[in-house]
Amino acid sequence: MERLFDEELTKLKEKLVRMAALVEDSIELAIEALKTQSEAPGCEVLRRERDVNLLDIEIDETCLRLLALRQPMAGDLRFITSAMKMGAEIERMGDLAVNIVERSEELRTMPLLKPLIDIPRMAKMAQAMVRDSIAAFIAGDVALAEDVVRRDEAVDSLNDQIFRELLTYMIEDPASIKRAVGLLLVGRHLERIADHATNIGEDVIYIVKGKTVKHYLDRTRSSGCEGGLK
Amino acid sequence: MERLFDEELTKLKEKLVRMAALVEDSIELAIEALKTQSEAPGCEVLRRERDVNLLDIEIDETCLRLLALRQPMAGDLRFITSAMKMGAEIERMGDLAVNIVERSEELRTMPLLKPLIDIPRMAKMAQAMVRDSIAAFIAGDVALAEDVVRRDEAVDSLNDQIFRELLTYMIEDPASIKRAVGLLLVGRHLERIADHATNIGEDVIYIVKGKTVKHYLDRTRSSGCEGGLK
Repeated sequence: MERLFDEELTKLKEKLVRMAALVEDSIELAIEALKTQSEAPGCEVLRRERDVNLLDIEIDETCLRLLALRQPMAGDLRFITSAMKMGAEIERMGDLAVNIVERSEELRTMPLLKPLIDIPRMAKMAQAMVRDSIAAFIAGDVALAEDVVRRDEAVDSLNDQIFRELLTYMIEDPASIKRAVGLLLVGRHLERIADHATNIGEDVIYIVKGKTVKHYLDRTRSSGCEGGLK
Repeated sequence: MERLFDEELTKLKEKLVRMAALVEDSIELAIEALKTQSEAPGCEVLRRERDVNLLDIEIDETCLRLLALRQPMAGDLRFITSAMKMGAEIERMGDLAVNIVERSEELRTMPLLKPLIDIPRMAKMAQAMVRDSIAAFIAGDVALAEDVVRRDEAVDSLNDQIFRELLTYMIEDPASIKRAVGLLLVGRHLERIADHATNIGEDVIYIVKGKTVKHYLDRTRSSGCEGGLK
């Protein structure tokens, strides 16, 4: 019985890792579609999205079954309910990869605004965050989770830089606006993928340390009302 | 024992409703900050965000306690694990209201591009979707959930319309680009709030009907690779 439960947990972990790998792959393909202005890699992303969605439903059902039949306590309980959330997070990342494909479809018939350097760099960072966040969850590795959370800042600032550069393009040449807005949105999609990985990282820290880093870590935003908040 | 469990479920439902009400309120305030170019409503949003985050953590902990101590079966089990997800969805919506405040902070020192009509309209639609999605969850009301899912399309097309209009502004007057991009992002934030409400609606349909509408309902997007998908 005990061994059966362990086996089921192992399978659950494998499914999460597989799901994350599919999404990592989708990000790569979506950026390839954008760079090469071709349709085929985008179709591959849609195919992977279907698998990601199926895995999300499978994970959900496995978790419910484990909760109902095994009535796990403490650590296992927390792990299983978290796995359901992780599945949902990864699924959202997959949706964002599809959003990038949609942007690249819109841009496919127009000449590329500029050779893409920073966006693929940002994509690589996001891909690594996806992989590492799930690895941190599976291993309960707080140090790795903290590292993922920290890296989110670099992604944000790269996105800000891309944003400012694209604004300059738009201001200099209104004919570039449509293309610049498209790329700007791709930057946002990537930033949000990194945000989801960060959510996972924060949850891992929360689960392992039991502290509520969640929500508070990056809430030191500079606002004029800090003093007004009681 | 049974009655205690029911009481706890009732409290859980109340917390979800309270959380959704806070977010609904935050959307209203964020748009007010944008329209009136004032700081105070934005500070109110940040204050509410803190409460939303605390409620999210409380809901999580209540659910874990219920799972561990009451070992609920079937319907209750599904409800409790879903409540954890709903909490996470509402929390994200709260974050998006904060994002709108951030955009309105950036725009505060620049003259308004145009009187805002469509964005507040979109905000009202999103607010109603937030309220109704949680109401549908609490009541297990599939018809209301389906209605929420359907309304997402109207929000999307209003957002597309806003997007196109803002593009026109940018092309006509490059000096308007920064402000137009700011508003364009506000539109995106609202669209994503509606997406989260739609996620909740789809989950409600899934929970009640057991069908996997989830993921499939709006995946009829027109893509050139439909035939290529085996």
